[in-house]
Amino acid sequence: MQIAIVVYDRFTALDAVGPYEILSRLPGAETVFVAERSGPVRTDTGFLAVTADKALDEAPCPDVLVVSGGPGTVGQTENPALLNWLRAADATSTWTTSVCSGSLLLAAAGLLCDRRATSHWAVLDLLKEFGAEPTGDRVVTDGKYVTAAGVSAGLDMALTLVGRIAGDEHAQAVQLWTEYDPRPPYDAGAPHKAPAHLVEELRTGGRFSLT
Amino acid sequence: MQIAIVVYDRFTALDAVGPYEILSRLPGAETVFVAERSGPVRTDTGFLAVTADKALDEAPCPDVLVVSGGPGTVGQTENPALLNWLRAADATSTWTTSVCSGSLLLAAAGLLCDRRATSHWAVLDLLKEFGAEPTGDRVVTDGKYVTAAGVSAGLDMALTLVGRIAGDEHAQAVQLWTEYDPRPPYDAGAPHKAPAHLVEELRTGGRFSLT
Repeated sequence: MQIAIVVYDRFTALDAVGPYEILSRLPGAETVFVAERSGPVRTDTGFLAVTADKALDEAPCPDVLVVSGGPGTVGQTENPALLNWLRAADATSTWTTSVCSGSLLLAAAGLLCDRRATSHWAVLDLLKEFGAEPTGDRVVTDGKYVTAAGVSAGLDMALTLVGRIAGDEHAQAVQLWTEYDPRPPYDAGAPHKAPAHLVEELRTGGRFSLT
Repeated sequence: MQIAIVVYDRFTALDAVGPYEILSRLPGAETVFVAERSGPVRTDTGFLAVTADKALDEAPCPDVLVVSGGPGTVGQTENPALLNWLRAADATSTWTTSVCSGSLLLAAAGLLCDRRATSHWAVLDLLKEFGAEPTGDRVVTDGKYVTAAGVSAGLDMALTLVGRIAGDEHAQAVQLWTEYDPRPPYDAGAPHKAPAHLVEELRTGGRFSLT
């Protein structure tokens, strides 16, 4: 089973590495980071590069497709090389997934038409422009399409997928090994939980940005 | 403020990338991945390489030190180049931290003597051999030393640290932006929660291993 994790310039690292850490522990999994060109790909902060071991055209038929998000997404929604690869890879994939604004790329490729999907809360409404039906859920499964909300939600998406692919017991084993027993010291991880002024500040581009 | 994230051959990716994703959003942070030699460093699965932008000796005085763990830890506990760098960097750091078995490296460097600390549950007892006092907590703060339990616990450690460094409001902003509102689909993320036979299997080297 090949799992292809799609990255591009200015992707958000945890969007990709969260699912990688969980999915790579599937029995028999071959996990590969792919990008338009192979080689180092730098993340949104500029502080980290990960290696894409294969170019897109070297991984034409992944079983599981994971599209990361990040500020770089905007520059990719009209990239024919990436969108065409997504369409072709999706044609034979068992699961097509995304994290954060990565769902905008699946949608831009026409893969989420009339499907329920999620994304980072700050860009959730943009899914409509591509014909998808946004929901505020953290992980949304519609057929073989599994989309996750922002950044850290990829962990929950991936563990859900491990359960679907390898069964509950293996998923529990992966959760135990990665000690995924989260205890965030604050409870501000979603717009309905965070202080309203912070939601407004971040929605309007303060502190951090997805563009 | 320089944040140095220490990686080495066969580290666990999320140990490093979790804290990176959170800590790099501190105001004025310069985050740098460091390794004994600069260049690509491959993770425990073999499926991913991240770039160490600097060699250890190019980052002698980080303000915040994050030591990742993973199966590669065992090979580093007697590596004088790494241990000497940890001692020297710790001498001037504001915070010295670790994720997963990374605490064994801090301990092997003599930095956790008589200090409370944590680690991945499967190697927690090994901390005693280096003079530390293991606790089963997910994040343990003892003076400037902050250690996290296995793999995903680095997210909680890093968010705790953001709160200490930049205040509660900024930590909440980071949590909101990264949508760190975890909803794992299972509740098996700690030994006291997981099925006993899985704990036993993993403790004795089944499925996954830290060596």
